Amino acid sequence: MSDASAPPSSSVPAAVPGFRVASGACGIKRRGEPDLALVASDRPAVVAGLFTTNRIQAAPVVYDRAILERPGGARVRAVVANAGCANACTGPEGLEDARRSAWRAAGRLGCRPEEVLVLSTGVIGERLPMDRLLPGIDGLATELSPDGWNGAARAIMTTDTRPKLAAREVGDGTILGIAKGAGMISPRMATMLAVIATDLTFEANQAAEALRRAADESFHRIVVDGDMSTNDTVLLLANGARAFVAPPPAADVEAALTDLCRELARSIVADGEGASKVVRIEVTGASDERQAETVARAVALSPLCKTAFYAEDPNWGRILSAAGASGVPLDPERLRLTFGPDESEQDVPPVEIATEGRAAPFSEAAARAIMERPAWTLHLDLGLGDAASWVWTCDLSTEYVTINGGYRT
Amino acid sequence: MSDASAPPSSSVPAAVPGFRVASGACGIKRRGEPDLALVASDRPAVVAGLFTTNRIQAAPVVYDRAILERPGGARVRAVVANAGCANACTGPEGLEDARRSAWRAAGRLGCRPEEVLVLSTGVIGERLPMDRLLPGIDGLATELSPDGWNGAARAIMTTDTRPKLAAREVGDGTILGIAKGAGMISPRMATMLAVIATDLTFEANQAAEALRRAADESFHRIVVDGDMSTNDTVLLLANGARAFVAPPPAADVEAALTDLCRELARSIVADGEGASKVVRIEVTGASDERQAETVARAVALSPLCKTAFYAEDPNWGRILSAAGASGVPLDPERLRLTFGPDESEQDVPPVEIATEGRAAPFSEAAARAIMERPAWTLHLDLGLGDAASWVWTCDLSTEYVTINGGYRT
Repeated sequence: MSDASAPPSSSVPAAVPGFRVASGACGIKRRGEPDLALVASDRPAVVAGLFTTNRIQAAPVVYDRAILERPGGARVRAVVANAGCANACTGPEGLEDARRSAWRAAGRLGCRPEEVLVLSTGVIGERLPMDRLLPGIDGLATELSPDGWNGAARAIMTTDTRPKLAAREVGDGTILGIAKGAGMISPRMATMLAVIATDLTFEANQAAEALRRAADESFHRIVVDGDMSTNDTVLLLANGARAFVAPPPAADVEAALTDLCRELARSIVADGEGASKVVRIEVTGASDERQAETVARAVALSPLCKTAFYAEDPNWGRILSAAGASGVPLDPERLRLTFGPDESEQDVPPVEIATEGRAAPFSEAAARAIMERPAWTLHLDLGLGDAASWVWTCDLSTEYVTINGGYRT
Repeated sequence: MSDASAPPSSSVPAAVPGFRVASGACGIKRRGEPDLALVASDRPAVVAGLFTTNRIQAAPVVYDRAILERPGGARVRAVVANAGCANACTGPEGLEDARRSAWRAAGRLGCRPEEVLVLSTGVIGERLPMDRLLPGIDGLATELSPDGWNGAARAIMTTDTRPKLAAREVGDGTILGIAKGAGMISPRMATMLAVIATDLTFEANQAAEALRRAADESFHRIVVDGDMSTNDTVLLLANGARAFVAPPPAADVEAALTDLCRELARSIVADGEGASKVVRIEVTGASDERQAETVARAVALSPLCKTAFYAEDPNWGRILSAAGASGVPLDPERLRLTFGPDESEQDVPPVEIATEGRAAPFSEAAARAIMERPAWTLHLDLGLGDAASWVWTCDLSTEYVTINGGYRT
């Protein structure tokens, strides 16, 4: 399954100047696995954040938003992130737990309390074990190191099977991000936890805009199960630690940020709960982009399409049916469906599966050969206009049910 | 699992005066199971129909709609129904196959071609095997019998594990319905195949209105996987065969029709692909009915809620999260969640699970005792107003994936 997400290049930077990180196990997860991470910047960093649009928002989301929405924009020095407990649906006490975590870290790091953000992920409805969490923060504050990112990526995992880290160099600057997410992944908003750090210099507005645009092309385009978390958060911290003679062009920085977010987003889909493959759903020939996106999301969310992906069964009727049920005014006679390789594999020829809304005379073996790949592209042309959109999804396996039937208990 | 749908009472009528039915195997299904049914009325019957709102409509849907939408209303003499092949995404040839099936039945029954409707269910994208289907119709036309309904209910099954038949007596009249459906069940429209026959007298408009209202309280309230079929059709045939001295009050007739549709709809959810239980999702305290329905459907469709139902795990955070993600402006502090028994079991006390958006001090064992039942009720009060709504859903099991990973091939 690890083939479906590109392996990190060995030349990827593992540290960001001015940031130090620590992680460890403080006893939130039941089996003694790493569950707490602390990310610290040696100077106040411009911060931008994207948060879940779920009406039920976890305490750390409420807490961080209040900080980020302060007039004039926030600058932060640290992020405390835990896995194993979402601190969601925990009422005023949960909010107080979030505040106490932030204040404890601030005390240990010698910064102001409002310079610390908190992230939580895990089971909803349980309180954080503060008697273990606070000493955990104390310990991590003494263990900060520039190369702690991999450990932090591990510490925020829940049902993830592997840590998610990506980095890019832009000019002399570095952008590095870690993320977690495998289930409760929905397409309409930032859909997981991610912390992205850079030593490049950003203005607050510029950071917010760049992060929003990057997420539109990455985190907002992934689907595992259509459920939306109460805790989804993406943070970008830019500390400007590197003094540049010639800062890289803003367009290059944004391209690198988008590219990094896409790598993280794809790694979340590839590690989707029980997933065995990544399918890019590409819809073209739409009247407008929203129409293309609606159809792409309908196919990406359809349990019948996703089980067919799992079975590597070119059951194209389910795909057309899902598109037809999306509410978009399709003309069935104009639909054209092809299965092709992943974007990165342009040498494999695509297979035309259906045309004019009916079966094309395709080879079942050729269609299956595409579907057996760890990553492939489903391309549906609507034949109505010039607009296009896409999302990444994964297959739905018996393992998804097993994981989610047994996660909490 | 059969406990989740009420067993048919032994006093239920098995025939409807003036209707004769036959079924058999004509070789559409690969294993020689029954796959063809013919329902005939000895006189023209007033007909009403509800059809899928999928933009991809199977040939039989296109064909039947054209007949039902004729000015002045249609009267029909027969319905030909097959399973194993949906005759969907089959282009003009598929429409011609539908027409030929209807015409063949008309020829054998001695009625006009436009007095015959057709229904198909099964794999999308394959042509009907007309060389086997037409002789099959010929054979069934010679085997019609008043008590053939059970066989017909069997012949239209696909992944269904049991036939679905319900009947009601109203005054001296009878209403009897058969249905099929187990997957590709979505909540926003008529969601399966059903044929309902009655010897009561209906005006065309009255039949259409009564069927629409009955479906609103039954077929439109069931969720298995959120996928919407290309073939969904519900037909009501009223042949007025019984000459009444005193016809039953219209309100009684409509109540009986609604009740029958609810029994059929519930039996579809109970037989949902891989399902082990029926959960009634009841939302109260909403500002308006649409809001209540939106929340109910969000919970009913959430894979994370449905896997928790399967695991009998009172993971209430997932339920609140699904409600919060529905787009309805909830106030988390006002939410109250209880688990209770099925409507029919008023002796079992409900268990309060969460209140004011947080865990209630509930007994895990008591919550599990409810969830282990073959049918139970999830009640979420929004605390915003007086409106309410409900849907029936089922759990999501590994078996659902196994069935749909292997259905076509």
